[in-house]
Amino acid sequence: MISDSDIALAHRCADAARDAIRPLFRGEYDSDSKADASPVTEADRAAEAAMRKLIEAECSADGIHGEEFGVKDGASARQWVLDPIDGTTAFLAGRPIFGTLIALLVDGFPVMGVIDQPILGERWIGIAGQGTRFNGKAVKARLCPELGKATIATTGPHYFSVEQGDRFMALAGQTDHRRMVMGGDCYNYGCLASGQLDIVAEAGLKLHDYAALVPVVEGAGGVMSDWGGEPLHAESDGTVLALGDPARLEDVLDVLAND
Amino acid sequence: MISDSDIALAHRCADAARDAIRPLFRGEYDSDSKADASPVTEADRAAEAAMRKLIEAECSADGIHGEEFGVKDGASARQWVLDPIDGTTAFLAGRPIFGTLIALLVDGFPVMGVIDQPILGERWIGIAGQGTRFNGKAVKARLCPELGKATIATTGPHYFSVEQGDRFMALAGQTDHRRMVMGGDCYNYGCLASGQLDIVAEAGLKLHDYAALVPVVEGAGGVMSDWGGEPLHAESDGTVLALGDPARLEDVLDVLAND
Repeated sequence: MISDSDIALAHRCADAARDAIRPLFRGEYDSDSKADASPVTEADRAAEAAMRKLIEAECSADGIHGEEFGVKDGASARQWVLDPIDGTTAFLAGRPIFGTLIALLVDGFPVMGVIDQPILGERWIGIAGQGTRFNGKAVKARLCPELGKATIATTGPHYFSVEQGDRFMALAGQTDHRRMVMGGDCYNYGCLASGQLDIVAEAGLKLHDYAALVPVVEGAGGVMSDWGGEPLHAESDGTVLALGDPARLEDVLDVLAND
Repeated sequence: MISDSDIALAHRCADAARDAIRPLFRGEYDSDSKADASPVTEADRAAEAAMRKLIEAECSADGIHGEEFGVKDGASARQWVLDPIDGTTAFLAGRPIFGTLIALLVDGFPVMGVIDQPILGERWIGIAGQGTRFNGKAVKARLCPELGKATIATTGPHYFSVEQGDRFMALAGQTDHRRMVMGGDCYNYGCLASGQLDIVAEAGLKLHDYAALVPVVEGAGGVMSDWGGEPLHAESDGTVLALGDPARLEDVLDVLAND
């Protein structure tokens, strides 16, 4: 299903996005009184354009779904889903924990995912059946024997509706909330795959935000679903849950459902 | 007031903290089911011990106030304030945006501050009368012509009391809140000094959390105060405000006071 050439293409896309993004990080904002969005758009567009060009040249039958340049239907069951910069606010703020996301979907389900941090030179790649690697080294999510010892992360409460915020807070209250971390975007899912976090819960995500995360997390032994416990696919509702230890999934879904 | 040897000592302290912290980052947590606090404590203690040793050897008359090993009274008007790892939860989560904080206070007011990111090799140093440098290069905070275009950051709403949270939200609502970033700890103040953020507002901070930030932010042209507009010193109340553009201080204090 996933060939060596698909994997090589994913790496080349991530390399191309790095080349496009790195020169623009912190570049236009020194002493600038107007932080308008244009340099970000420039970085976003340049990175996505570079990736699309590579995919169109090598896999012309595949569909492409990118945040900046939209959907190009394909003739195959395969679709590449691209988010050139996930964590735009972090990029703008000069924090090197945003990421480039690349996913390969078959029949709407993600089977390969890349989280690439262009500034730090960090790359997680997860491939169905082949596990997850961080800069070439296999990684595993950690076990979490009880919810009360879990570390939870989310990018920020301002991305939740009031009702989602209440459900998140109910969950966070059951974890070791002294360790709760905010911010992070896709980088949190990479840290979870590397065994540094136990739970990430978010809402309002789009396909390009979550598609690449699934193979990374699940290839490391974790599990992802929506807040109702359904597997994530192209038509999911945007609620996203990642757990390093699948044994805690039922506990977490119970808390999310009861509030 | 601040000699070249003081500056050299601050750099040597930051170097020593890096050496202590770097081997422990992400080290003990791979595939570990129990993320207890001991490796952090080990990193914290090793870094602070290394810094105290250097200061005691060279400036034996000065006081030292460290997060881990407490207060050693001095015979001079000078006090070194140390936080070996500011952003413990970020360190534990594997995010390289925590920092080592080193401040020199004279009569209770900070006159030199260092924010060091050991993993990325990034260092801001601010010195009263000499400006702020990031890895050796002078940096300036950016202007912010109107509050509605400001980017605001805070480590997380869970660090506020309910009343403080209401005041923060009133302020955030006046900014360009689509760009609001959460998480970040001391790293936010470095990004502000480098012209990437406009406002950081926090509460519940201790002297070791904020002392080093003041010379970094103010040496870059920004301003810091408590939420009442008073300069930060050894006896401040823990509310902390940083602005890249001092021209916005009055607007911000008005919003914080009215809620």
